[in-house]
Amino acid sequence: MHIDLNSDLGESYGAWKMGNDEQILSIVSSANIACGFHAGDPLNILSTLKQATAQNVSVGAHVSYPDLVGFGRRNMDLSYDELYADVLYQISALQGLAQVVGTKVTYVKPHGALYNTIATNLAQAQAVIDAMQHFDETLVLVALAGSPLIHFAREQGLTVISEAFADRAYHRNGALVSRRLDGAVLHDAEVVAQRVLNMVLKGGIESIEGDFTVIHADTICVHGDTFGAVKMAEKIRQVLLENQVEVRAFHG
Amino acid sequence: MHIDLNSDLGESYGAWKMGNDEQILSIVSSANIACGFHAGDPLNILSTLKQATAQNVSVGAHVSYPDLVGFGRRNMDLSYDELYADVLYQISALQGLAQVVGTKVTYVKPHGALYNTIATNLAQAQAVIDAMQHFDETLVLVALAGSPLIHFAREQGLTVISEAFADRAYHRNGALVSRRLDGAVLHDAEVVAQRVLNMVLKGGIESIEGDFTVIHADTICVHGDTFGAVKMAEKIRQVLLENQVEVRAFHG
Amino acid sequence: MHIDLNSDLGESYGAWKMGNDEQILSIVSSANIACGFHAGDPLNILSTLKQATAQNVSVGAHVSYPDLVGFGRRNMDLSYDELYADVLYQISALQGLAQVVGTKVTYVKPHGALYNTIATNLAQAQAVIDAMQHFDETLVLVALAGSPLIHFAREQGLTVISEAFADRAYHRNGALVSRRLDGAVLHDAEVVAQRVLNMVLKGGIESIEGDFTVIHADTICVHGDTFGAVKMAEKIRQVLLENQVEVRAFHG
Amino acid sequence: MHIDLNSDLGESYGAWKMGNDEQILSIVSSANIACGFHAGDPLNILSTLKQATAQNVSVGAHVSYPDLVGFGRRNMDLSYDELYADVLYQISALQGLAQVVGTKVTYVKPHGALYNTIATNLAQAQAVIDAMQHFDETLVLVALAGSPLIHFAREQGLTVISEAFADRAYHRNGALVSRRLDGAVLHDAEVVAQRVLNMVLKGGIESIEGDFTVIHADTICVHGDTFGAVKMAEKIRQVLLENQVEVRAFHG
Repeated sequence: MHIDLNSDLGESYGAWKMGNDEQILSIVSSANIACGFHAGDPLNILSTLKQATAQNVSVGAHVSYPDLVGFGRRNMDLSYDELYADVLYQISALQGLAQVVGTKVTYVKPHGALYNTIATNLAQAQAVIDAMQHFDETLVLVALAGSPLIHFAREQGLTVISEAFADRAYHRNGALVSRRLDGAVLHDAEVVAQRVLNMVLKGGIESIEGDFTVIHADTICVHGDTFGAVKMAEKIRQVLLENQVEVRAFHG
Repeated sequence: MHIDLNSDLGESYGAWKMGNDEQILSIVSSANIACGFHAGDPLNILSTLKQATAQNVSVGAHVSYPDLVGFGRRNMDLSYDELYADVLYQISALQGLAQVVGTKVTYVKPHGALYNTIATNLAQAQAVIDAMQHFDETLVLVALAGSPLIHFAREQGLTVISEAFADRAYHRNGALVSRRLDGAVLHDAEVVAQRVLNMVLKGGIESIEGDFTVIHADTICVHGDTFGAVKMAEKIRQVLLENQVEVRAFHG
Repeated sequence: MHIDLNSDLGESYGAWKMGNDEQILSIVSSANIACGFHAGDPLNILSTLKQATAQNVSVGAHVSYPDLVGFGRRNMDLSYDELYADVLYQISALQGLAQVVGTKVTYVKPHGALYNTIATNLAQAQAVIDAMQHFDETLVLVALAGSPLIHFAREQGLTVISEAFADRAYHRNGALVSRRLDGAVLHDAEVVAQRVLNMVLKGGIESIEGDFTVIHADTICVHGDTFGAVKMAEKIRQVLLENQVEVRAFHG
Repeated sequence: MHIDLNSDLGESYGAWKMGNDEQILSIVSSANIACGFHAGDPLNILSTLKQATAQNVSVGAHVSYPDLVGFGRRNMDLSYDELYADVLYQISALQGLAQVVGTKVTYVKPHGALYNTIATNLAQAQAVIDAMQHFDETLVLVALAGSPLIHFAREQGLTVISEAFADRAYHRNGALVSRRLDGAVLHDAEVVAQRVLNMVLKGGIESIEGDFTVIHADTICVHGDTFGAVKMAEKIRQVLLENQVEVRAFHG
């Protein structure tokens, strides 16, 4: 058995530090690296890429709407052409930097508002898909488990990886519980680690309504932006290894 | 006989238009394309790249300090690491977009303040040279004719192209006449075209002091941002062709 | 009889020029001046403010979403707190510059996507209204004629001015014809000038469906970004004056 | 006896947090608040202004070159007109926000590279001085102790406050020891607190060369960006109070 763990990295910007890239890179198998549109300046991106290469972690482009002050978390009504060019630019920039440090962008995970929007907005999704395919047909898309995007992108020939979230509650229909509701985010590292193990071994978890729910997870997102988040990620990795589940990049 | 004509393109930004890319691309053989740091958003860059490809014009990265509001014209005191990463990011982004439309970045021409600064500031020059060599050893550097940068970059194995300016006056020592002095910029298209022809056929021009000055020009920069500039560029091309000088990219 | 003519000004950014501020300021009575979020850097804003003051034109803050590359034309999903602070910052910056050149911000006209969104999205509208009232209770809001925003803002004590567009077609219910439909934008200066006159003298115009439609216009927006736009604005002013309609700021 | 303690605040940007504004505001008497050009988005600035008002701390504009990614720490070669307008815009924006929360910008402390540059570059200094005087003649300038700027600005009628740094070593001629030299920054809170006390009571401190050096300090800068920095600031305040030195804003 094996599973991919991914995390959002390279999110420092100039003098502002975010995340614990070095530590989290010793835990995960895939690094979603900011490309400069929601976070990440060239120097910080390069530094994270070097660390990812040193730790043999797979690299993906964490592409975003152009919104530094909003950290890419606010929906933006970009045209197809704008979004297509913006995504292409971000993948390109990251791939060039990656190549110089001896690695390669192998996948794309849209960030924040863009991630959520294209899960269901297939017009915007098309721009992302086209940018990926025109740049490199072997690029893999990381998409929200259970979302319409998965089928839509696969139909067009893209390899799509289904993503679950380690610390989030799910409804019985497989949808994420909204962050505005109580219980949406889980904080107990032991509980979270056990849920991740269940996703891998049983193919699902207990929903917030109490019954078992199938969650198809090719990769599981863990956080690294706080001390507690790193501890939780370590626990997840430890519980997986103790149960003979290897942590390895999905394309491995 | 042949000579390369280059021009700064892709300098529109969002709703703001600058230059006459389509027209100037029918005149020049090399297009210095903005990469987003002093000008050029992804969509406008992509559009210019498509036009350059359609017209079979060679593509270079017009890399800059990160200063949109100052259009890259103001000196900035970047560290080696910052400048290295910034240049790498810009070349990478442009190369990715170029590849998608079927062309390739073959050279780098630093823009504005960066161009002038690294002509003599070899610490900053080193960052540009290293970024170029780490990205692609075959990239050619376009540098100010007569500047210390030319020898410095060649010593490190880079192919360097010496650039002259069609509409600028030169001192007898080969230095550009400062724009703050009268007569620094020439406005008569016939005169300018004849000087360009002299650069090619005689290897130099009459200096502002009145004597002949050697100017080594592998490429000659023409402007395209005004109606008059396009007319002047057309005249230069016409005079060259009438005198059996082919206009063709330096790497051709 | 009198009417206010307003236009969007100060929209240059660094080296990129937009609009013909000097010319249009001799035509209009109110200048909506960009505040740096969709357009306008401090130096260009200051220059437009000086010209407006010299020509005795009333000054308003043309506040926007923070989106330079999209020119404020793309919807953005800002929180109440973000939008409130962004609007306050923009009014403040413009008012400080205005005071130094001897004028004063007397009104606020939201720009582009923000203008259209708050016409009906009253949650975002509330942020704009609160920012205005907290900054200066006498600030006037310019809002789309016929929109829910007008009543909503007046209920809260704000003075609201109803705006019509000189060159746009209207439906019989008073709504603007979408730009995506044929006939949405009128290009004949004579026709447009006559419609503006009818808005003033008859309180409405012929709708695209052919019948007379009431349009309540306290101010009428004219454009100045092209040669043709300036000519049209001049014609509008001329026809108004010939018919004894004075062009003067709404608060005059 | 009394002295002013100042600190740089409001330096968070969007999702990126920097500093411990709430804690440091209970220690200092003057808050240099970022205005959006090197740090500080409208919402974070507003939040810091509210906290400063609640704690009755004096507010100054921490104006900067426009360089977010470089945090205003890199020299930039702005023209007089650009710098004048940029400074005016920043003071204006901060003053508008300040007024809304019930406080007022009473001084200007240039940030980072701008602070260091105008200490001796009087052409750039003139732009800052003019912007301040045109905005509000009562604004006070905080300038590096011993720098030419102090006399230059006073000659023009500006009130100037001389600033020393709590944790920095000084040469016997009153100049700061360069950060590139060993011993330039002091890390022992007790030692630093004693030096601050000496600045107040004895009008100077021991230089790095070992002899007593006069340092004229109307205000002393303390840091708040790390846990250790807050502890040091607390110690400084405590030692001052224990020695009957009141901490109070310079204009108080």
